[in-house]
Amino acid sequence: MTLTHAEQHFLGRQDRGYLATIGPEGTPQVKPLGFRYNPATGTIDIAGFNMGSSAKFRNVQRNAKVAFVVDEVTARSMEGTHFLEVRGVAETVVAAPEAPGQRGSEIIRIHPQRVICFNIDPAAPGLHTRDVPAAGAP
Amino acid sequence: MTLTHAEQHFLGRQDRGYLATIGPEGTPQVKPLGFRYNPATGTIDIAGFNMGSSAKFRNVQRNAKVAFVVDEVTARSMEGTHFLEVRGVAETVVAAPEAPGQRGSEIIRIHPQRVICFNIDPAAPGLHTRDVPAAGAP
Repeated sequence: MTLTHAEQHFLGRQDRGYLATIGPEGTPQVKPLGFRYNPATGTIDIAGFNMGSSAKFRNVQRNAKVAFVVDEVTARSMEGTHFLEVRGVAETVVAAPEAPGQRGSEIIRIHPQRVICFNIDPAAPGLHTRDVPAAGAP
Repeated sequence: MTLTHAEQHFLGRQDRGYLATIGPEGTPQVKPLGFRYNPATGTIDIAGFNMGSSAKFRNVQRNAKVAFVVDEVTARSMEGTHFLEVRGVAETVVAAPEAPGQRGSEIIRIHPQRVICFNIDPAAPGLHTRDVPAAGAP
């Protein structure tokens, strides 16, 4: 388990995150995307329309370093601002087909290496950062 | 003017964007932030709590390459998905004080070099990308 229960709970409530990759000339790129936390692999898995031919997919194959952030605003205040940023390395994989005979879909799979939380765990408000043990890396 | 009227109109309706910078080890970082388009400079200006001592502020001083994305979901469909991504170079500046005697605040100022739009201009739906003439660069 690379993310805590509180972190997984927060991610489970949101349907959109923002993936930063590095483009061919070294300039960052950032895109809104759907995602899911995959408890079996401890990764954040990102699917999407035409994923296999997207720039972000090629970026990850060239440079695996990525960041991904998910946020929520529950009130117009510091206390009402919540975000979870994951930094790490990504790989491109073909996910298993959902049904026999279907084609597997290409996804970006992020292995968290560092987690930055702001007001994510109600029991521990504020900013918290931590490294994730390397076992989850590809 | 670095952004079109339709692009400025879209940005004016949103209050939150996502800034990708490159950290000291070359890993991207991405954070949710408030912003405004500055029509006088043709830049996207980003202020924020303790901006001058933030990691993103130092990142920009080390590596000026950034990306910034703003999105909106108006319906659960491709047509209802909208985003505007700006890639370019950023500088750190001290904005003029709002009133005499006040201290100026540190901001990150993004000079757009490339714009990627998806469903931003109602008159031209779909994906559009373009370069921004270099006059706006620092």
